[in-house]
Amino acid sequence: MAAIDTWEPAEATARSLTFAELSSRYRVVRAHTLALAVPLSEADAQVQSMPDASPAKWHLAHATWFFETMVLERFEPHFQPHHPAFRVLFNSYYQGVGDQHPRTQRGLVTRPGLVEVLAYREAVDRRMAALLAQSGNGNAHEHSSALRDLVVLGLNHEQQHQELLLTDVLHLLSCNPLLPAYAPQPSSDAVVSGQPAGWLSFDAGLVDIGHAGAGFAFDNEGPRHRVWLAPFRLARCLVTQGEWLAFVEDGGYAEPGWWLSAGWEWRQTERIQAPMHWRREGDGPWQRYTLQGLLPLSPHAPVAHISLYEADAYARWLAARTGQPLRLPTEAEWEHAATSPAGLPQATGDVWQWTNSAYLPYPGFQPWAGAVGEYNGKFMMNQMVLRGGSVATPDGHSRVTYRNFFPPGTRWQFSGLRLACDGL
Amino acid sequence: MAAIDTWEPAEATARSLTFAELSSRYRVVRAHTLALAVPLSEADAQVQSMPDASPAKWHLAHATWFFETMVLERFEPHFQPHHPAFRVLFNSYYQGVGDQHPRTQRGLVTRPGLVEVLAYREAVDRRMAALLAQSGNGNAHEHSSALRDLVVLGLNHEQQHQELLLTDVLHLLSCNPLLPAYAPQPSSDAVVSGQPAGWLSFDAGLVDIGHAGAGFAFDNEGPRHRVWLAPFRLARCLVTQGEWLAFVEDGGYAEPGWWLSAGWEWRQTERIQAPMHWRREGDGPWQRYTLQGLLPLSPHAPVAHISLYEADAYARWLAARTGQPLRLPTEAEWEHAATSPAGLPQATGDVWQWTNSAYLPYPGFQPWAGAVGEYNGKFMMNQMVLRGGSVATPDGHSRVTYRNFFPPGTRWQFSGLRLACDGL
Amino acid sequence: MAAIDTWEPAEATARSLTFAELSSRYRVVRAHTLALAVPLSEADAQVQSMPDASPAKWHLAHATWFFETMVLERFEPHFQPHHPAFRVLFNSYYQGVGDQHPRTQRGLVTRPGLVEVLAYREAVDRRMAALLAQSGNGNAHEHSSALRDLVVLGLNHEQQHQELLLTDVLHLLSCNPLLPAYAPQPSSDAVVSGQPAGWLSFDAGLVDIGHAGAGFAFDNEGPRHRVWLAPFRLARCLVTQGEWLAFVEDGGYAEPGWWLSAGWEWRQTERIQAPMHWRREGDGPWQRYTLQGLLPLSPHAPVAHISLYEADAYARWLAARTGQPLRLPTEAEWEHAATSPAGLPQATGDVWQWTNSAYLPYPGFQPWAGAVGEYNGKFMMNQMVLRGGSVATPDGHSRVTYRNFFPPGTRWQFSGLRLACDGL
Amino acid sequence: MAAIDTWEPAEATARSLTFAELSSRYRVVRAHTLALAVPLSEADAQVQSMPDASPAKWHLAHATWFFETMVLERFEPHFQPHHPAFRVLFNSYYQGVGDQHPRTQRGLVTRPGLVEVLAYREAVDRRMAALLAQSGNGNAHEHSSALRDLVVLGLNHEQQHQELLLTDVLHLLSCNPLLPAYAPQPSSDAVVSGQPAGWLSFDAGLVDIGHAGAGFAFDNEGPRHRVWLAPFRLARCLVTQGEWLAFVEDGGYAEPGWWLSAGWEWRQTERIQAPMHWRREGDGPWQRYTLQGLLPLSPHAPVAHISLYEADAYARWLAARTGQPLRLPTEAEWEHAATSPAGLPQATGDVWQWTNSAYLPYPGFQPWAGAVGEYNGKFMMNQMVLRGGSVATPDGHSRVTYRNFFPPGTRWQFSGLRLACDGL
Repeated sequence: MAAIDTWEPAEATARSLTFAELSSRYRVVRAHTLALAVPLSEADAQVQSMPDASPAKWHLAHATWFFETMVLERFEPHFQPHHPAFRVLFNSYYQGVGDQHPRTQRGLVTRPGLVEVLAYREAVDRRMAALLAQSGNGNAHEHSSALRDLVVLGLNHEQQHQELLLTDVLHLLSCNPLLPAYAPQPSSDAVVSGQPAGWLSFDAGLVDIGHAGAGFAFDNEGPRHRVWLAPFRLARCLVTQGEWLAFVEDGGYAEPGWWLSAGWEWRQTERIQAPMHWRREGDGPWQRYTLQGLLPLSPHAPVAHISLYEADAYARWLAARTGQPLRLPTEAEWEHAATSPAGLPQATGDVWQWTNSAYLPYPGFQPWAGAVGEYNGKFMMNQMVLRGGSVATPDGHSRVTYRNFFPPGTRWQFSGLRLACDGL
Repeated sequence: MAAIDTWEPAEATARSLTFAELSSRYRVVRAHTLALAVPLSEADAQVQSMPDASPAKWHLAHATWFFETMVLERFEPHFQPHHPAFRVLFNSYYQGVGDQHPRTQRGLVTRPGLVEVLAYREAVDRRMAALLAQSGNGNAHEHSSALRDLVVLGLNHEQQHQELLLTDVLHLLSCNPLLPAYAPQPSSDAVVSGQPAGWLSFDAGLVDIGHAGAGFAFDNEGPRHRVWLAPFRLARCLVTQGEWLAFVEDGGYAEPGWWLSAGWEWRQTERIQAPMHWRREGDGPWQRYTLQGLLPLSPHAPVAHISLYEADAYARWLAARTGQPLRLPTEAEWEHAATSPAGLPQATGDVWQWTNSAYLPYPGFQPWAGAVGEYNGKFMMNQMVLRGGSVATPDGHSRVTYRNFFPPGTRWQFSGLRLACDGL
Repeated sequence: MAAIDTWEPAEATARSLTFAELSSRYRVVRAHTLALAVPLSEADAQVQSMPDASPAKWHLAHATWFFETMVLERFEPHFQPHHPAFRVLFNSYYQGVGDQHPRTQRGLVTRPGLVEVLAYREAVDRRMAALLAQSGNGNAHEHSSALRDLVVLGLNHEQQHQELLLTDVLHLLSCNPLLPAYAPQPSSDAVVSGQPAGWLSFDAGLVDIGHAGAGFAFDNEGPRHRVWLAPFRLARCLVTQGEWLAFVEDGGYAEPGWWLSAGWEWRQTERIQAPMHWRREGDGPWQRYTLQGLLPLSPHAPVAHISLYEADAYARWLAARTGQPLRLPTEAEWEHAATSPAGLPQATGDVWQWTNSAYLPYPGFQPWAGAVGEYNGKFMMNQMVLRGGSVATPDGHSRVTYRNFFPPGTRWQFSGLRLACDGL
Repeated sequence: MAAIDTWEPAEATARSLTFAELSSRYRVVRAHTLALAVPLSEADAQVQSMPDASPAKWHLAHATWFFETMVLERFEPHFQPHHPAFRVLFNSYYQGVGDQHPRTQRGLVTRPGLVEVLAYREAVDRRMAALLAQSGNGNAHEHSSALRDLVVLGLNHEQQHQELLLTDVLHLLSCNPLLPAYAPQPSSDAVVSGQPAGWLSFDAGLVDIGHAGAGFAFDNEGPRHRVWLAPFRLARCLVTQGEWLAFVEDGGYAEPGWWLSAGWEWRQTERIQAPMHWRREGDGPWQRYTLQGLLPLSPHAPVAHISLYEADAYARWLAARTGQPLRLPTEAEWEHAATSPAGLPQATGDVWQWTNSAYLPYPGFQPWAGAVGEYNGKFMMNQMVLRGGSVATPDGHSRVTYRNFFPPGTRWQFSGLRLACDGL
């Protein structure tokens, strides 16, 4: 779990890595996953608290399955599966690789237990180490390049599950009326921006967005392509908990006029009254449940655990109150700002930032070939893009071109809001 | 129900209309709605066959409610409502105007009966005629302009409900195992393109799309704005029933590899095997249920009643079979092509054409002021844009800038597909 | 719709009827059904307001289908169906006779329209008249006896649908926010008992209950059999609206202690606060919606439209408040009391009376042979018995042995409560 | 888990126990619960596999909560709760004692963990031991009697949860595609009756059923009361797996004629084709999943895991095939037979036996006073009675008057069938 203040491209994962470096990086990433699981009991690691979430044990196993299936099965001589049933049990959604255990029943598989899953990790790690050592001894060829690419992909995949493991654990523990903490209080409190408030302005123009070049990126980040942007401004700072409290106290959750139609219906059905994990006793002050337990609001820290519907309603409310044409940014605006010379404060390390861009293919997009082609492209419907990165995103994982995506009613992620405004 | 072969901008609805012309146009549009209801029994007009659909009687009443609430209530001196309860009963979703009768219970209101609703129409028509006659006598001023705009909006609104009335009736009658026909066989069969097949090519460039100018358009069609387009091609012709049959017979509905993840889940849950209203007895030939009853497939006529998920799967399937980068067009590509000197064959009059553009606000979009501001903007989430117009779209209603929108699993509309292709 | 004050066994339907008398009775019963439909518009007759209810048009058709399928098809020489599709469309649940149109989709069949259904009735009535006339000319034999039995069954079946037609119409109209009346105000108000209050006492003993003898009864009313009864008392009078109001005002609907576990869950899920069709504006007085429209409570008239759960909770509440062992009667207690020399006031003509007897087979029960064997036996699970008869029960239809049955959460019937008490 | 061949009344739990004997019995029963949990991992003990089931950890805690709440809180001087939150977390459904953690979310409470729950058990056991030791020193008085009664009730309650723990674990493990075994193969296979087949016959007569006397019984087993029985026969033996296979292979699950209406609907919705836990690969032989893993059918052993609907359909099928009036017994018939001089073979130790008696109060029934009054009475609706006892019922727990009850679609219990027949 990393608090990142500066924005560095993840060039460490580029193709120029030697196999020795790759092997080292493999060990570091895999060890970090285990470290995240340390505070969990076997029971904590077992339970699936809602259909969207997965058990921590499943995350531990599935990320391992990815290496076994996508790497070992293809590159290891005389490959034998660790356990034949794991192929199905820990396949998430790759139809091309065979059947999947139903997603909603992941929490029912109590055996293999946590110990067997950890043994599975260790066994695959040993085999991966051997494979990488062997590959490092050979000559560079296309085979090596494919192997290197898939290992790097597997590590990025594992990092995604590191963040999901934390958000899923947070959801699980939040269902416990005792509100237990995942981890002790961190030494420093939530990251609070010392940035000056206000706006960054951008002229109209043709800009290029999307990934290109040697470093690793997911297929959905490319191709790099041209986009016309009208003049716009982006807020220097993320919307804070204190600012959000004003929205709550002004009755923002009770006024349909601020909400999208689908958002209002969602709010009514789910009886939403505040960000996820905000709680209060009677008329007492609002508090927020976190991985460190129940804490008071931190007025200057970014608000988290809001859906796109809430973010959009907030923008409309503030637009009406201030008379400014406030709104959510598009992903192109966000990326252009983040790559501008001035940079974008709080770009990552706090919360993922909802954009009002639908998660759709870039012009000319082609999914990767083979089984890993099911990674991103098939989810390009009914989802909205988030940009940046959160307090739960592993160091070096995200990029300015990174496209995170969730349906607009999603709240269990560390998702927040940066405002945009039409014109200069 | 209109079969339009040529594409004419709807300048007849522009602000330059005199009140006498407007009054005449009012009578024509309103009479057309009644004509659509002629083949319906009182029972046909009463039933709501699914939550997305509305009873024909409700359409007749709601379009009238729109004129009463948005026009008469504001402009008629000493306004008295026709019936106090109708304000709630026939309000669709305008929260700013008060409560609404729950959408899913529209079919339960058997009283007022069809006769009372027709009397409601007649009474409002009489009052509208008087108002327009009176306004025509006065001087032009801002008041007149607002009145004119709202009447034009009301007529466009009524035309939208004309199309919905037909698609809702088609759905209702399709639930009847006797498969009755709404209307007798039309003299000529479905419109079949005599266009040469093949592609229209478009270079990369900055283009302008969206509505500007004097003629009527919905708020969501503007502002006109600049978009960069990469080089692309659009098919001259819509995908035909015969072409779709090849997809069905090649097992396209059974292969998850062609489908978006959400599309495959939708297909599984709904047990979809062919376009809506396609039917077969055992292994017999496929037929299609239409407003004229059960008909054989018309191999050269456009396929209709497909969801975006099906359209997208078809494009992936054909791309794999042909090796071409086929896909759905974006709405900007579609509009650019339709306004190009060559024009776009089958642009309207057959089926609405799914695009892969999410229904989101154009840069700088502002909803209309007042109650009618709830018309379009609040639905900008979880929907995809369709362009063109269908066999059920009233003459002169659609435009090249028109943005129709439905969720990606929608099939009960006259929705079809025109393919696009990357590159020249 | 009949208000019955006296309790007469339905001997008029016995086997001793001549065919001429049977033919006459047929005309009377069938005409009564039509009379009930007179106040309904075609729209009223079309709509199915909930899955448990059926459209009035369907009742009109299904009761006719019963005669066509169970009588004409078997006894009419050279039988031809009126319309082949009606065999499926209007079959309720007789699996032995073929497929059924899905119950929840009865309201979607707008064609055949009401006129065609009335023509169907007339055609079957003509054919029935001819068949009965012809049979009356022949000699008595087994054939005649089977015909006579089935016609009598069909008439009793039709009478059941007369009551259901009224309760279904009441439910439909209650969904209309205008609360229209089915029929004008009757000349006299609801039947109010002039009976002295208090208890009827019955000693312990072996008694016989159930139907035996020549008159018509449903198969589920027999065989007549022996039951041991402990000493008990039955209330002379039904629980009144005024008495129920005291329960409401004492918070009876908010105290889980009075409720069965399943009842409390039902109450919470359905948000029940008063009998069905009771309404109030804000803190105004309770009113009740009836077939005659909205009326004030009638404090001395029986409460209606309560579920067994409510009836049971009321008894527990009153038992706790009075210290008496109050409860619902069993069906054997009810029948024994009703056949006692003293008789049972308000036995029928007001409301069906919930008993705490599950609807299960009597010892030695055998369903009728043939298709009509699916009439009663297959529903003997998850239902509770009601005894007596209601204001909506046709004259002469019910009997002291009559077993009406519904699931315990049912409220749209005219269902009420008579209390019982342990001991003398 | 006990295999009982003989039928002994549970007089060991009678009121005549000394406190020393009670204390000893307490230790034995509580230790047995722990023994059942030994084969479970922390993960196994955590998961709730369906809403009807509870986690094993919850059973361990709830049975302890019962002693803490019903005994210690009332009798222990200066009572302090072990943990304030446990009062709500482990309350099942006692509204009189306060709030309950929602039933469907029992599996989400990962903390307290299994270790804390075991510590809770140990702490309560220590306090109970002290209380009983102290009470044994004092004089007998009413206070002692109430204490003794509640401890005996608590032990019977714990035994009920011992059986539920096993059936819930069986369900959980059955959801795992690896089909793990809870326990190693027992030394002897399932109990197979050596009884001669055939019928036990009983004359008509007035009999007494229900509990009376000094030994412990639940409140729902009384009062003892008189019932008239018509002549009947009961099968000596339970229906076997081999006999059930004949029903399966004769298409019994596909023929609606054998099924109650609600049963057929249940079968269709749940896609039932065989008893729960029966499985087959393709057209291979049927096997059954058990606590010992997957086993072949045992043709002469009783069939288990059938719902009442299946039991009833089987009886109808066999009645039609044999021409005998076969059916399920009533609970009065079962109890009368079990207490007859000849006794009833396989009365307990194999499977609970569905009766066709609804679970309703006996004449004169009164629930216990106080909080424990919510134990049985409030569930007397929508459930059917099972009699006997199963392989999972603890030794000495059941009685001839014991009324087990579940809804008619329940299958995850060890439920089977003994046939009855009308007449001698």
